[in-house]
Amino acid sequence: MEIVEGTITLKVPEGSKEVLLKNLYLSCDPFMRNLMNKPQGTETSSGAIGGFGVSKVIDSGSPDYKYGDLVWGLTKWEEYSLVPSSQIISKIQHTDGVPLSYYTGILGMPGVTAYAGLFEVGSLQKGERVFVSAASGAVGQLVGQFAKLTDCYVVGSAGSKDKVDLLKNKFGFDEGFNYKEEPDLNAALKRYFPEGIDVYFENVGGKTLDAVLLNMRVQGRIPACGMISQYNLTQPEGVTNLANIVYKKIRMQGFHFFDYVNLYPKFLEFVLSHLKEGKIVYVEDIAEGLENGPAALVGLFSGRNFGKQVLLVAPE
Amino acid sequence: MEIVEGTITLKVPEGSKEVLLKNLYLSCDPFMRNLMNKPQGTETSSGAIGGFGVSKVIDSGSPDYKYGDLVWGLTKWEEYSLVPSSQIISKIQHTDGVPLSYYTGILGMPGVTAYAGLFEVGSLQKGERVFVSAASGAVGQLVGQFAKLTDCYVVGSAGSKDKVDLLKNKFGFDEGFNYKEEPDLNAALKRYFPEGIDVYFENVGGKTLDAVLLNMRVQGRIPACGMISQYNLTQPEGVTNLANIVYKKIRMQGFHFFDYVNLYPKFLEFVLSHLKEGKIVYVEDIAEGLENGPAALVGLFSGRNFGKQVLLVAPE
Repeated sequence: MEIVEGTITLKVPEGSKEVLLKNLYLSCDPFMRNLMNKPQGTETSSGAIGGFGVSKVIDSGSPDYKYGDLVWGLTKWEEYSLVPSSQIISKIQHTDGVPLSYYTGILGMPGVTAYAGLFEVGSLQKGERVFVSAASGAVGQLVGQFAKLTDCYVVGSAGSKDKVDLLKNKFGFDEGFNYKEEPDLNAALKRYFPEGIDVYFENVGGKTLDAVLLNMRVQGRIPACGMISQYNLTQPEGVTNLANIVYKKIRMQGFHFFDYVNLYPKFLEFVLSHLKEGKIVYVEDIAEGLENGPAALVGLFSGRNFGKQVLLVAPE
Repeated sequence: MEIVEGTITLKVPEGSKEVLLKNLYLSCDPFMRNLMNKPQGTETSSGAIGGFGVSKVIDSGSPDYKYGDLVWGLTKWEEYSLVPSSQIISKIQHTDGVPLSYYTGILGMPGVTAYAGLFEVGSLQKGERVFVSAASGAVGQLVGQFAKLTDCYVVGSAGSKDKVDLLKNKFGFDEGFNYKEEPDLNAALKRYFPEGIDVYFENVGGKTLDAVLLNMRVQGRIPACGMISQYNLTQPEGVTNLANIVYKKIRMQGFHFFDYVNLYPKFLEFVLSHLKEGKIVYVEDIAEGLENGPAALVGLFSGRNFGKQVLLVAPE
């Protein structure tokens, strides 16, 4: 990744139906790593990497958007981006009492991802036993809180003592542990789930998944959101306990945010009401300036971020 | 396993509601290997291992069964078995034109397993691309034929040239290959599925699953019936390509016959009509005599059987 300077005319080209955005906040998300693997990915062809962000409309060739609208959706890592209007997920209507940056997280893609993964893909039921990895991250912190709102028993794993404290003291998880300090992940899970796990929200893959499979309950579900521990390995770790999927009739299912965009209005109503009542909290780690973007993005893979990693590009 | 001799009174004990069965055919099924792992499995406590079979009722404490009824369900590997009537899956009504042994296979548990796995768990749609491993076995041969009846493109893998010939010449698979002669399973799958696999019916696990994951299509499904290649390993093989479950939004789901027993009447109607029209065929490998049971059962794990492995205990 490198910073490239250039000039851009702040007008949508004559006859174009695209929208010109001033990017305010950019979202650092693990899935972006995989876009970079694509040898001819359209996301990288312009030179700027693509990702989610919160932006202000500067000019518009689309009748649906006008100067000054605040929007969130797929944009590019640059100061101004010209994008097809189809890349905008939603206009931002609610700004009272919630930071605009939340639309890269709890009120944006990670929020819908946690919601759809738990309730649609994971078929979460009241009172079930839930485990989530990368639990202090953008999606994980919401998974845990949504599950607690569903009267579930919730345990999360994270990569430092401070993050584990966050889980227990701020997000209201029942338990949390630092996976880096557990020599035997299977034993750790047995300690926290003596009766097994109903739903494992999968964010990391590898050794954690392998230990989880030994501890799943019959007819357990594994909504698979990501496998961040594996993305940067040339040879991914081998998972050896998959026969448990057969023995225990486990359903493991990968899913992407884009298949659940239609849930957004329902989701927004759910989460805004809980946010306003203080029943959900959200922790962000905000880096400032495009020039600090690469380090912020790369930091996700070593767990440098504390909460959802956001990049502030320009104040509103 | 050892043969034990004993005597039994051919009457249901006074006051018991159990049913006394004379076992005619016993079914050799891979899942039985896992029952034997249980340190205190009820299935082994009597000394005789449990499994599916076709039996004749000799005496009955249950009003639902009477002397002379032919039944199939869970029995034990012995000449006569006293079982709770709840272990009987069904009375056998149709015997015209179909061998009684078929109720250990195409008309029994393996048949329902293939049917439920493909259509319920695998959500198979007309015209999809289907791959099945252990394809000449009890379940695999039916999976392939049911998928062909659904206008699908079907490829199977098996462990010998003769078995592959069976797939193509007798069961009507589009293609088949001998996995033992493929140095690169990924390349083999790419050859047969240049556009990828919609449904992989999983019977074997391990290296085959790992190669399949690289070749699944977006929103593909993997009904997981068994992982026979792994059951006898002290250290199961590591599967490294699971991140494809996330990338491609794959749904992998383990399932057991017992959750789909309610489909049996509908299934029986479906399969009997096709059998009578000659649109489905079934190949069995029948060993004779209880004393040859252990070798027949163990043979499943090296692929010694040619078609569904059955054990004839007593002629009707």
